Amino acid sequence: MSRMLEEIRQQPVVLERTLSGEIRRVERFKRLVEKHKPRLIVLVARGTSDNAALFGRYLLEITTGIPVSLAAPSIYTLYQAKVDYRDTLVVAISQSGESTDTNLVLERARQQGALTVGITNESGSTLAGLAEHVFLVRAGREKSVAATKTYTGQVLMLYLLVHALGGKIRIDDLQRLPEWAQMALGMEAEIEALSERYRFMDHAVVVGRGLNYANAFEFALKLMETCYVVAERFSSADFLHGPIALVEPSFPVFLFSPSGVTWPSTADMLARLSGLKAETVVITDASNREAADKANRLIRLPRRLPEVFTPIPYIIPAQLFAACLADQKGLNPDRPRTLSKVTRTL
Amino acid sequence: MSRMLEEIRQQPVVLERTLSGEIRRVERFKRLVEKHKPRLIVLVARGTSDNAALFGRYLLEITTGIPVSLAAPSIYTLYQAKVDYRDTLVVAISQSGESTDTNLVLERARQQGALTVGITNESGSTLAGLAEHVFLVRAGREKSVAATKTYTGQVLMLYLLVHALGGKIRIDDLQRLPEWAQMALGMEAEIEALSERYRFMDHAVVVGRGLNYANAFEFALKLMETCYVVAERFSSADFLHGPIALVEPSFPVFLFSPSGVTWPSTADMLARLSGLKAETVVITDASNREAADKANRLIRLPRRLPEVFTPIPYIIPAQLFAACLADQKGLNPDRPRTLSKVTRTL
Repeated sequence: MSRMLEEIRQQPVVLERTLSGEIRRVERFKRLVEKHKPRLIVLVARGTSDNAALFGRYLLEITTGIPVSLAAPSIYTLYQAKVDYRDTLVVAISQSGESTDTNLVLERARQQGALTVGITNESGSTLAGLAEHVFLVRAGREKSVAATKTYTGQVLMLYLLVHALGGKIRIDDLQRLPEWAQMALGMEAEIEALSERYRFMDHAVVVGRGLNYANAFEFALKLMETCYVVAERFSSADFLHGPIALVEPSFPVFLFSPSGVTWPSTADMLARLSGLKAETVVITDASNREAADKANRLIRLPRRLPEVFTPIPYIIPAQLFAACLADQKGLNPDRPRTLSKVTRTL
Repeated sequence: MSRMLEEIRQQPVVLERTLSGEIRRVERFKRLVEKHKPRLIVLVARGTSDNAALFGRYLLEITTGIPVSLAAPSIYTLYQAKVDYRDTLVVAISQSGESTDTNLVLERARQQGALTVGITNESGSTLAGLAEHVFLVRAGREKSVAATKTYTGQVLMLYLLVHALGGKIRIDDLQRLPEWAQMALGMEAEIEALSERYRFMDHAVVVGRGLNYANAFEFALKLMETCYVVAERFSSADFLHGPIALVEPSFPVFLFSPSGVTWPSTADMLARLSGLKAETVVITDASNREAADKANRLIRLPRRLPEVFTPIPYIIPAQLFAACLADQKGLNPDRPRTLSKVTRTL
């Protein structure tokens, strides 16, 4: 069994441990920011952590009404810009805590008076030393190059950050995430069987919208890293503004499709893709009864999930799919060619 | 000849006309914002206009030090979030001015007290009616579905916006852009000959960094829309955090490679890609003497360009390449399958 698969299976435990281990620190941070609410939130990260940041970009702005920006590190690392960070909360996210550019942006921001938070898996890392407030993803060492349990751990920390900033996320609801993650793991056999069909897939598009937009990036990254599939990622709206021209019969498109506010546009997209004879694979849950008729293949979690909590349970079948497909293709997902676990860029 | 090619050739004239036609309006806007400098800039757009916004995201933050965020329209159109837009400048960019979601975000922002700017090609459009301040890209009607002259026109308007906000962009320098665009058009015959080599290319990666990051998105979009090439786009840093695993011998990678602050990381990337035996095509200018040894193919503008003004002259050979490659593949770039000129999404 690959380490990737092993680590995918650890996620319910990681979520439980991170939640119970960090809740007190989060409540303390909540009391602090109640006095000085930030006017702007800037998220900085690379790779899989940047996909978690993209989730945070949506969740934070939707639930707190504070404007959010995803940092462009080169603005600081290469162009040496001085950005006005008064009343700004800067959040750096890094599994290893050793991402050179992420750390540099956080350091500059702190010097310029920003309130700084670090989210990392490593309490002894450079990032943990640089940030004023540190939240730990308690995932245990991640050995596979393809990050899985640290992604969902980071996503959980972003829900907790929303809670700290006064957004409507209840801790009681977050406590159900480990159980929902467990339910998602129950689909492994089904997904293993399904993956055979994609043995010879060499390109694909992954579509997600709103709170699941980041999952489209993360699933595509897993397909690129572990299966060498050239995987594009779009929101259903952006996909219509040009890239849909790519779609010919049998072109594979994976869609994260919860019920709720994003469903009408996803349903339109599915109808459009069906007209083009694309191969559609929908990841959804029991609350979405309409998806079944519209897709070629369905990955449907057996319980009803509120849209706001779908991102963690939905990425797990996608992680499983990537691990199984790598196996189908005779590849080792723990050691993708060319990559190493810690990437340092400026 | 395709309309796309015809419109690519109009760009020097469009740049000239837009600059001389809008300069007075820009100077008036400059006097207005000098009194109330915004604390945050939010850019909202879709498709090619969103790529222009991505350029603006870098240029504005680098040159003005005001934090910039790219809006996620679904936050307003689907999740109905109320975001705190005090002291915020919201800039909507749309060729047609009829992009439903872009307009809705601008309208909400204006209701919430933001200063609003619309950048569009159509003076009678919905966007022109909604925005407090309107800047016109004077491109003339764009008939090809693949946008070219409106992209560079929008990019020019973003330089002018920086000038209005007190960033270091001199009008004298902008006046050289039509001449640099003309120089880029002079490469058409060379690019037409080069395109034959890529007759059977069905996937690719486009890499750009900093001020040319948006060009990577725009070139990839042109390759998807007009040539049906599955084209990924990354910064050289993000490419290293996972997707580089895709690269096998002959895998085509296009790189925007000006001299200046982004060159060292691009040079490292080229060395890495050469080790992997990838097929590299570099778009650069006469100021970069090192690029020639490192790439399989070179598109080199014959004059020396300051990095900050490379984005317009660099995208033109890329547009020409997409138009010529579509021709090589027997496709009509003016009528990509599935697409129409105005896309309305929510």
